[in-house]
Amino acid sequence: MEHDSTRDTARPKETSSPHSTDQLSRIPHLHAVVLAGGSGVRFWPLSRELTPKQMLNVFGGTSLLARALHRITPLLEPGNLHVLTSERLLPELRTHLSAEASPRDLLGMPEFLAEPSPRNTAPAIALAAAYLVEQDPEALMIVLPSDHLLEDGAAWEATVRLACEAAESGSLVTIGLEPTAPETGYGYIKAGRALPGLEDGGMRVHAVDRFVEKPDETTAEAYLAEGGYLWNSGMLVARAASVLSQLRSAGRRGMTEDSRHGEMIAQIAEEIATMSPDEWVSTSARERFEALPAVQFDKAVLEISERVTVLPVSLEWSDVGSLLSLGGLAPADERGNVLVGPAVDVDSHDSIVYSSGRLVATLGLADALVVDTADATLVAPKERAQDVRLVVEALKAAGAPEVVAPRTAIRPWGTWTSLFKAPGYHIKLIEVLPGKRLSLQSHERRSEHWVVVEGTARVERDGEVVELAANESTYITPGARHRLANSGEVTLRVIEVAVGEYLEEDDIVRYEDDWDR
Amino acid sequence: MEHDSTRDTARPKETSSPHSTDQLSRIPHLHAVVLAGGSGVRFWPLSRELTPKQMLNVFGGTSLLARALHRITPLLEPGNLHVLTSERLLPELRTHLSAEASPRDLLGMPEFLAEPSPRNTAPAIALAAAYLVEQDPEALMIVLPSDHLLEDGAAWEATVRLACEAAESGSLVTIGLEPTAPETGYGYIKAGRALPGLEDGGMRVHAVDRFVEKPDETTAEAYLAEGGYLWNSGMLVARAASVLSQLRSAGRRGMTEDSRHGEMIAQIAEEIATMSPDEWVSTSARERFEALPAVQFDKAVLEISERVTVLPVSLEWSDVGSLLSLGGLAPADERGNVLVGPAVDVDSHDSIVYSSGRLVATLGLADALVVDTADATLVAPKERAQDVRLVVEALKAAGAPEVVAPRTAIRPWGTWTSLFKAPGYHIKLIEVLPGKRLSLQSHERRSEHWVVVEGTARVERDGEVVELAANESTYITPGARHRLANSGEVTLRVIEVAVGEYLEEDDIVRYEDDWDR
Repeated sequence: MEHDSTRDTARPKETSSPHSTDQLSRIPHLHAVVLAGGSGVRFWPLSRELTPKQMLNVFGGTSLLARALHRITPLLEPGNLHVLTSERLLPELRTHLSAEASPRDLLGMPEFLAEPSPRNTAPAIALAAAYLVEQDPEALMIVLPSDHLLEDGAAWEATVRLACEAAESGSLVTIGLEPTAPETGYGYIKAGRALPGLEDGGMRVHAVDRFVEKPDETTAEAYLAEGGYLWNSGMLVARAASVLSQLRSAGRRGMTEDSRHGEMIAQIAEEIATMSPDEWVSTSARERFEALPAVQFDKAVLEISERVTVLPVSLEWSDVGSLLSLGGLAPADERGNVLVGPAVDVDSHDSIVYSSGRLVATLGLADALVVDTADATLVAPKERAQDVRLVVEALKAAGAPEVVAPRTAIRPWGTWTSLFKAPGYHIKLIEVLPGKRLSLQSHERRSEHWVVVEGTARVERDGEVVELAANESTYITPGARHRLANSGEVTLRVIEVAVGEYLEEDDIVRYEDDWDR
Repeated sequence: MEHDSTRDTARPKETSSPHSTDQLSRIPHLHAVVLAGGSGVRFWPLSRELTPKQMLNVFGGTSLLARALHRITPLLEPGNLHVLTSERLLPELRTHLSAEASPRDLLGMPEFLAEPSPRNTAPAIALAAAYLVEQDPEALMIVLPSDHLLEDGAAWEATVRLACEAAESGSLVTIGLEPTAPETGYGYIKAGRALPGLEDGGMRVHAVDRFVEKPDETTAEAYLAEGGYLWNSGMLVARAASVLSQLRSAGRRGMTEDSRHGEMIAQIAEEIATMSPDEWVSTSARERFEALPAVQFDKAVLEISERVTVLPVSLEWSDVGSLLSLGGLAPADERGNVLVGPAVDVDSHDSIVYSSGRLVATLGLADALVVDTADATLVAPKERAQDVRLVVEALKAAGAPEVVAPRTAIRPWGTWTSLFKAPGYHIKLIEVLPGKRLSLQSHERRSEHWVVVEGTARVERDGEVVELAANESTYITPGARHRLANSGEVTLRVIEVAVGEYLEEDDIVRYEDDWDR
């Protein structure tokens, strides 16, 4: 088979169980800032505005975000794990993580930081850096994408340790991956000379010759042949103070439009960082932040600063940059098709068909991409996978609700799935994990009929408590304070038929909640 | 746009209301035999084994079958409408028609005849002919496909009348349509000289030069240029006795493998026709019928007999031969795409996207066909539309239930739709028409929880009757004799949650039924 420039199927090995953290030495002053504000529009219909790519678990048992957090936690002191996201996603991510990640493995839940407004990575990273400097002038920060796949284990830890060592001297250490194919979907870093002294088991920190944009295929092949070119992983290790000083210094040099506002960005970031993170989304903070240019940190600092280095490593990695990554989920058949889920094909070749549950039948397709979810289907040629954002824009313009939320919502107590919605009623499957319960709540404008179909429910209703087994039902009137709990040993499954003129999720008053919602 | 050989988008005009039958003179001795045994595999996923193409109403308000019946009824004496189908489809068609067609317009429901076994059209038409001769030695028969689109009205009636007149003399009168495009998907009839005497408003019956198979595009264009070639509509008018005598005569001539068994077919047909139609599916009838060769009536008789004529007409017609017919349901956009239902497209051209309810997004497709239903999606290039049967075969081999039945089942009282099924429970939406009721029934192995979400239900349970309004619920235990009726003025909608180890439809005992099921 000839080389496919749209290939994006790396499947890094990851250890299946969390590390035994007791055996590790944590890195003093190191803080992780995990960037989780991405909207993941290139992954629609799997991703939605409220469940972007970092929250998807199609690439393994847990979400990309949970895996990113689990990967770095063993190297951090407690309290040094931060998730930087948008105000809108923050509650979603908090709920998501309480379901997807183990607080024990994360040494407690991470700190969630909401950027005042989406202004791309330069203002966001500057704000995080200023915030860390406020807490600890010696803070080291590792900036990590939340939606990539990355090999875990000893090589990863050695990479972080060596990068931290290099960063202590004031340089901004990028992590570059030895390329294994002439990828056209990644930016590259051309490594310069190896820097003296900094070495671990064959790894050495290098100067950076230059950053290069996503190349065309010929150029990418030339890079591979020439050597010294690395994939830009988007990971960065630096002293937090150095991030701000290099931002300023790049601004003063004023070489490019993207970099010349560095001083202003650092200044505003430092001002906002004196506030508590809860206030970052206040009007005053937002107004100041919105005055900043929306520029990438790479453009504003890394491509300008002379204190940037790169640590070349050979970790397995993928940026999971498009739906074509789904092609890595299963072996291809003899015609090069990858079928995931209940898909049946006749005569297609080199196509990817992903179904999350419904039957998808394909006939005679070539290089096609079909992604099917409970409520929406996408069909495109593979070569247009990068343009899925155009579909999302068209759907937004059309007001399609399928852009915003998926059919199954993950909650700390389990999940609920919208099975059918029509004017006047809404049917849901509610799944509650053993020992968990929903909040004590009431609805103004809808009644709820519950039929237990599996497990045992404890239902509280206006102070009264009843136990319901499978094949028993109950009824919640508007205004009734009620609570559903799983009092059994297996997952509780309840079919809810909500009836009313108004059926949206915002018709809820919470009186008590195990997750303080 | 250049000519598209796969075009199949004719949309015949049909009158929207049934004829005022009083003004018509019915044709004495005429019986209609509507062939409704087709499995419609080329229309999957819209059609299923139990709801083949003739039962689909995507091409108008009622099904193709109902329209075929309504079209011929005004020309028939009461009792002369017969539907010939398979044993398996017979109960489905009966239920379907009681929901889709008006018995008043059909002068009572048609007589349903089940062929003893599927042996293609020659044995089936022979059996129907023999059955009609048994009833009326002077019977005229019109054989009609049940899954075509055809223009209704005065021209249609004149066609049938003239064909009947011609058939009285003993000839087998085919109906040929003046071609409007060089179709490669139809067989053609080359008309010979006009026969004297038989004429109505410019229409004349012709001798037949020859029947020709589906041509390639060049040949089809030559036919159009030459003139005298007609599309073979599959409709036939003949004296029932002539059908049998011509079948025998073709058999005696023994010119082809397909025709040489004519005598045997006529003989067995006559033997079985002496039985009541209920007995046609008995073991003895089936064994005799299965000894017959599975041959087409066209091959066995029409292409051999010298008593075959053709009536050229200019009716609008389509055989709705493939999913490409969906392209006639809406005007194409400026890039030649036809989008039906909640479909959103970016950058595709010349594609057909049909969704029956879910969101389908397409990006950058060319000449593609996407058909989405509640439980299954098909994606193929338009040029492979004729090969959908290969998908159906693959699905059958895989045991996919999506081949057999659709998610919504039509019943004489309304519909039920499977919303969600999992081990231990099954959720349905039950819609009951005003004034209708389900049978008095019980289930051995499942409980049913009913929540009324719209309308008013009268529920009978072990002799007790309660009325339930929207937002009220009830519960049916295993073994309880129960009946659900719509006692209101609007459609009753009930959500049923059935709970049990065994949830199939065959767990039902009926005690009383308005449709004698």
